[in-house]
Amino acid sequence: MKAVVLASGQGSRMGYKTKALLKVAGRRIIDRTIILLKPHVDEFVFVVRADSSELEDYLNRHWRGKIRYRIVKNPVPERGNGYTFLLASKAVGNSHFVLTMSDHVYSKEFVEKAVRLKGLIGDFKPKYADVEEATKVKVENGRVKDIGKKLKDFDCLDTGFFVLDSRAFEAARRVAERKEVVELSEVIRELKPEVSEVSGEFWMDVDTPEELKKARKLLVRLSVKGRGDGFISRNLNRKVSTRISEMLVDHITPNQATILAFLTGILASALVFFSLPVAGIVYQLSSILDGIDGEIARASLRTSRFGEWMDSILDRYVDFSFLLAVSLVALNLVPEKMLLTVSLFALIGCVMVSYSTEKFKASYGRSAYDCLKAIRYLPGKRDERIFIEMLLCLMYKPFLLLLVIALIGNARVALTMAIVSSARSELES
Amino acid sequence: MKAVVLASGQGSRMGYKTKALLKVAGRRIIDRTIILLKPHVDEFVFVVRADSSELEDYLNRHWRGKIRYRIVKNPVPERGNGYTFLLASKAVGNSHFVLTMSDHVYSKEFVEKAVRLKGLIGDFKPKYADVEEATKVKVENGRVKDIGKKLKDFDCLDTGFFVLDSRAFEAARRVAERKEVVELSEVIRELKPEVSEVSGEFWMDVDTPEELKKARKLLVRLSVKGRGDGFISRNLNRKVSTRISEMLVDHITPNQATILAFLTGILASALVFFSLPVAGIVYQLSSILDGIDGEIARASLRTSRFGEWMDSILDRYVDFSFLLAVSLVALNLVPEKMLLTVSLFALIGCVMVSYSTEKFKASYGRSAYDCLKAIRYLPGKRDERIFIEMLLCLMYKPFLLLLVIALIGNARVALTMAIVSSARSELES
Repeated sequence: MKAVVLASGQGSRMGYKTKALLKVAGRRIIDRTIILLKPHVDEFVFVVRADSSELEDYLNRHWRGKIRYRIVKNPVPERGNGYTFLLASKAVGNSHFVLTMSDHVYSKEFVEKAVRLKGLIGDFKPKYADVEEATKVKVENGRVKDIGKKLKDFDCLDTGFFVLDSRAFEAARRVAERKEVVELSEVIRELKPEVSEVSGEFWMDVDTPEELKKARKLLVRLSVKGRGDGFISRNLNRKVSTRISEMLVDHITPNQATILAFLTGILASALVFFSLPVAGIVYQLSSILDGIDGEIARASLRTSRFGEWMDSILDRYVDFSFLLAVSLVALNLVPEKMLLTVSLFALIGCVMVSYSTEKFKASYGRSAYDCLKAIRYLPGKRDERIFIEMLLCLMYKPFLLLLVIALIGNARVALTMAIVSSARSELES
Repeated sequence: MKAVVLASGQGSRMGYKTKALLKVAGRRIIDRTIILLKPHVDEFVFVVRADSSELEDYLNRHWRGKIRYRIVKNPVPERGNGYTFLLASKAVGNSHFVLTMSDHVYSKEFVEKAVRLKGLIGDFKPKYADVEEATKVKVENGRVKDIGKKLKDFDCLDTGFFVLDSRAFEAARRVAERKEVVELSEVIRELKPEVSEVSGEFWMDVDTPEELKKARKLLVRLSVKGRGDGFISRNLNRKVSTRISEMLVDHITPNQATILAFLTGILASALVFFSLPVAGIVYQLSSILDGIDGEIARASLRTSRFGEWMDSILDRYVDFSFLLAVSLVALNLVPEKMLLTVSLFALIGCVMVSYSTEKFKASYGRSAYDCLKAIRYLPGKRDERIFIEMLLCLMYKPFLLLLVIALIGNARVALTMAIVSSARSELES
């Protein structure tokens, strides 16, 4: 399958910028389109304005050798995007193809569903798009009956994503013979393709700076979905971290965010020796910041296994350094044998919570949270532990903190062992 | 594909036992055959002696509902195993099929190679079989030219494993018309099937109690292959543990072996308070015993993801309990702040060595040892750490023990991070 990307628009409401090159949540729109379509497509055809080499230069600089693509120049962008589309005809040949617009932003989930379907991809329950501004579609017998921005009676929105074949070019050619300016909606009206449904997934066209901001915000918010967060994370940490991620997503990389959270955690540990309450608050802050690397990575399509791995190891060392500092502070408060024992129990419990679920994934190849719902409801995830640690720091109770972490951590591991053990025969098959 | 298992032999050299039901390294031969062929076969045909219902009863008790199978009764086992084979003809029909003997033991690797091939599976470089006793094969133009136990001039051994079609039954029928006693080798001589090579993998026919013992020993030894062991494990622990496994494999389950090693480790920790040298030796013993569960599991085809998971978690708690005990003993030897710090560093280092590689597998879906050779050569694996700990216990140096573990463990983690980081772009693709 090929992919045709129409990129001859003017970006008039964006100060005449090449919209394909705009950054949305840390990634240029064109790069998003390429990254998401790449696994499904063997060649890209970009139709660009002949009066600017900006996009062409960009593609040659960043994608040459990484994807197969052709660039078709459009000397008459004023003839409309239906005509732009027609210009791709020769480069596409008889192949099936995806057609999409260079100013549309899609989520991975949207693209993965849409590429398997046919015709115009319609959103019947739009959750994110601006219905007012969107192109509407009236469907009859599974096919487009009418299409337009001003339709009063419509069934779904045109997502700007199509899976078509050469008949679409023939339709465009017929319209172009009748008219000078050929809008894509007219081509669609002529073609009357089937309508396939992808509803409720994220897609947006980005026409104005406000929409750009909205897309960024939505992409960051969506990056949190289905993460299996703990209670504190869902109700506190994520509400703050997503706001920070929105601010940072265009400016820092996920790995930089990982280091930021790590250093904040180490700072918290150092602060233990000066003020336990302040240290507790900074530790909780580091826990909030710990969500940002993942949010930025997912929103900007920069997730990496290395990032996931490194983040997880650094988290363990942050927790270690905080427990070490608290243990040293608690040294004179209780008998030393008791302190040493409780400190070591706190550390092993704290690390083993994570170890037991990571080792589960290593052994079973699946997430324990996905396989065993009961584990999701166990308290004592990192976000929850750190919140409790902060509270105990605020109360100036370092030994109690160690004791509570020792109990919560090891109890959680024991319960995890019981849950996995009782499900072991189902899990094996 | 179907599988025909010939099980009408007398077991004369085994005291007239049903050989298929003999236990070899913790598993009956018939169960081994079924477990290994099951993924490749949709129906089994067992040809059993009509004068004994022992095997039939066993199959009905243990395999009904788990595999599809038919039982064909052989009222004339004295007519030879070629005739036994012919009796399977109706049950097999026109399907391709695997033909194998109920007294042959194969490794998983052998079966996985052999089922993809055709004709007589020959071993051209036998490593484990008794060449004297084996059936030899002379090959010409890729086909069997002659076959027999007493061939002087031969190219390979007959592994007792064949992948055939209905022409084999026709050949058997022709021989049966000429002769009363039909040996399988005569059928093969008549059929002249092609010869495919699976060389150097483990297979054996088990005719005598000595061969049974030899098979058990070899299966346990082979269970250690390619485990990515550390230096101490390769050169000391495995040499002892495989001997223990040979003794235990017919008597205990892998999970029982896990618990045995765990309890020995906990005992070692308790002994720290009585005698550090004795504790160190028992800890090293627990490290040796820790290999047994895996050896028994692999040798008896009982590996389970649950076993792997649980073993790994219990190992961490054993290491924790030993370090805790040593820390408590060292408490009066050095200033308490230093001890607390070093103890916590020792514990985190010790756990993180394992955490970093398990998390690697969880993130990348592959073993770090397979992907990154450099990691294999890092010192500080568990077997090596415990051996060093034992030495330091023998020298009565508890604090030095903690210090050394803290250094080795965390240095290893740091080096792992450096190695993974420098290979991160290759690993991502």
